[in-house]
Amino acid sequence: MQIFIRISLFLQEYIINRISDMNNLPKIGKYNFVAEPFHCDFTKHLFIGHLGNNLLNAADFHSNDRGYGVNYLNSVNKTWVLSRLSVELDKIPAIYEDFVVETWIDSVMRYFTNRNFKITNKDGYVYGYGKSIWAMIDTTTRQPVDILKTSNETISEYLEADYANPIKKSSRVKLDDDLKLQQSILTTYSDIDINGHVNSIKYIEHILDLFPIEYYKKYRIKKFDIAYIMESHNNDKLNFYTNIDSINECNNTVSVRVTKSGFKEEKEVCRCQFSFG
Amino acid sequence: MQIFIRISLFLQEYIINRISDMNNLPKIGKYNFVAEPFHCDFTKHLFIGHLGNNLLNAADFHSNDRGYGVNYLNSVNKTWVLSRLSVELDKIPAIYEDFVVETWIDSVMRYFTNRNFKITNKDGYVYGYGKSIWAMIDTTTRQPVDILKTSNETISEYLEADYANPIKKSSRVKLDDDLKLQQSILTTYSDIDINGHVNSIKYIEHILDLFPIEYYKKYRIKKFDIAYIMESHNNDKLNFYTNIDSINECNNTVSVRVTKSGFKEEKEVCRCQFSFG
Repeated sequence: MQIFIRISLFLQEYIINRISDMNNLPKIGKYNFVAEPFHCDFTKHLFIGHLGNNLLNAADFHSNDRGYGVNYLNSVNKTWVLSRLSVELDKIPAIYEDFVVETWIDSVMRYFTNRNFKITNKDGYVYGYGKSIWAMIDTTTRQPVDILKTSNETISEYLEADYANPIKKSSRVKLDDDLKLQQSILTTYSDIDINGHVNSIKYIEHILDLFPIEYYKKYRIKKFDIAYIMESHNNDKLNFYTNIDSINECNNTVSVRVTKSGFKEEKEVCRCQFSFG
Repeated sequence: MQIFIRISLFLQEYIINRISDMNNLPKIGKYNFVAEPFHCDFTKHLFIGHLGNNLLNAADFHSNDRGYGVNYLNSVNKTWVLSRLSVELDKIPAIYEDFVVETWIDSVMRYFTNRNFKITNKDGYVYGYGKSIWAMIDTTTRQPVDILKTSNETISEYLEADYANPIKKSSRVKLDDDLKLQQSILTTYSDIDINGHVNSIKYIEHILDLFPIEYYKKYRIKKFDIAYIMESHNNDKLNFYTNIDSINECNNTVSVRVTKSGFKEEKEVCRCQFSFG
């Protein structure tokens, strides 16, 4: 009987905590994922694209739960767009491993907000970190809007500036000068996400597909940093400029510039650096 | 106090059921998924490819839990390969919807086994069904092996022949005669799965990318049936032959034959039919 009373007290406390959580959510959101077998590459580690999608999912759950996510924003013709994503990884989750994505916002300005990610296993082992910058746009004009004037500043109630993230503040993504056209593709149905444009993570997948598979037998991604400059849409011609040929044992960082055709001059869509180790 | 005693009794029963489940798993496995926002297309419904991956994940969890999955098979140089997948859908899960994949095996022969899928929401509403045929191969020779002689026939202990699946027994996938070469691609890193070959679901994604996006504004997939004939690998040239041009309001079924180059004659990799509604 004693044990049941103890379990009952535990249950009571759990229920009370749940109710109080709903009204007063923690600033840091925690979301559980698993490296599902069909989300893993031939080395039996999670595809970086799937990890990236999980980061975006965590951001989406966290902001929606706190009243400033796309569920609310879509009702007032606004949405979040990812402007910058930096990820540094000590290790990539292996097949069947559970992992946790913690996410929090440390600051908000009129036109940008900083979102952090920490990727751990359930015992607290740290796989890596992420840092991102988001803008809010009007879905009709596609122009930036004042974040602080939207959603009654709810976002400011959940700022967490003291939780450590070793990734330094983003500076401009610098590209090497000697980039050559590596490949061009036409975007298709599966590139397009719920916002009607090419999904941010799809650029990363297309970029990783530029490397010969032998490369992934020797190296794995340690770090990437991507700046999103302009949207692209279905059936756009994307051009990938890289210096893949120049990487070797001493230089393991690759620059990639993605442009889209269909204008007098090609326009830059995103620019990024990937480091292997 | 009364309520806590009731909760405690419920808990006790739950714990006893869990322990008995671990020793004697049900024949039908049930797995929960959610239509994550970044797994949804521009219509805000789950991409068919992601639904397909969830079916394969459910199959993997179900067979591993019962001792005849790839976790065990890899230790004896064997693996499962998907030979056939038929899916019929009344509705596709919408963004944020929870859904459940039930899976069970109804029969097993020397070289093939039949796996069923039922896709519902948590209230039992049925989105659709799937039926699949799997073979077991030796990972060294890539040749079929006798399923009944492997894993001490554990698989036979979990047959469930009475749970209804309205999808009829698979017959040969018949293709129309007038197929034309629609596109050729070279497979890349992200096409390759943990087994080192092109992932079964990736063929479906490449096929769905053959359709203009406007098609998905008018129609959605009601049914598909795909037969996998031969493996393909990284950097293989895949050719997609279709009769996409002949579909219209009266004929909403498309045939697709996928071949690979690099032989005297192209070899058939898979053949399928997709019906829209």
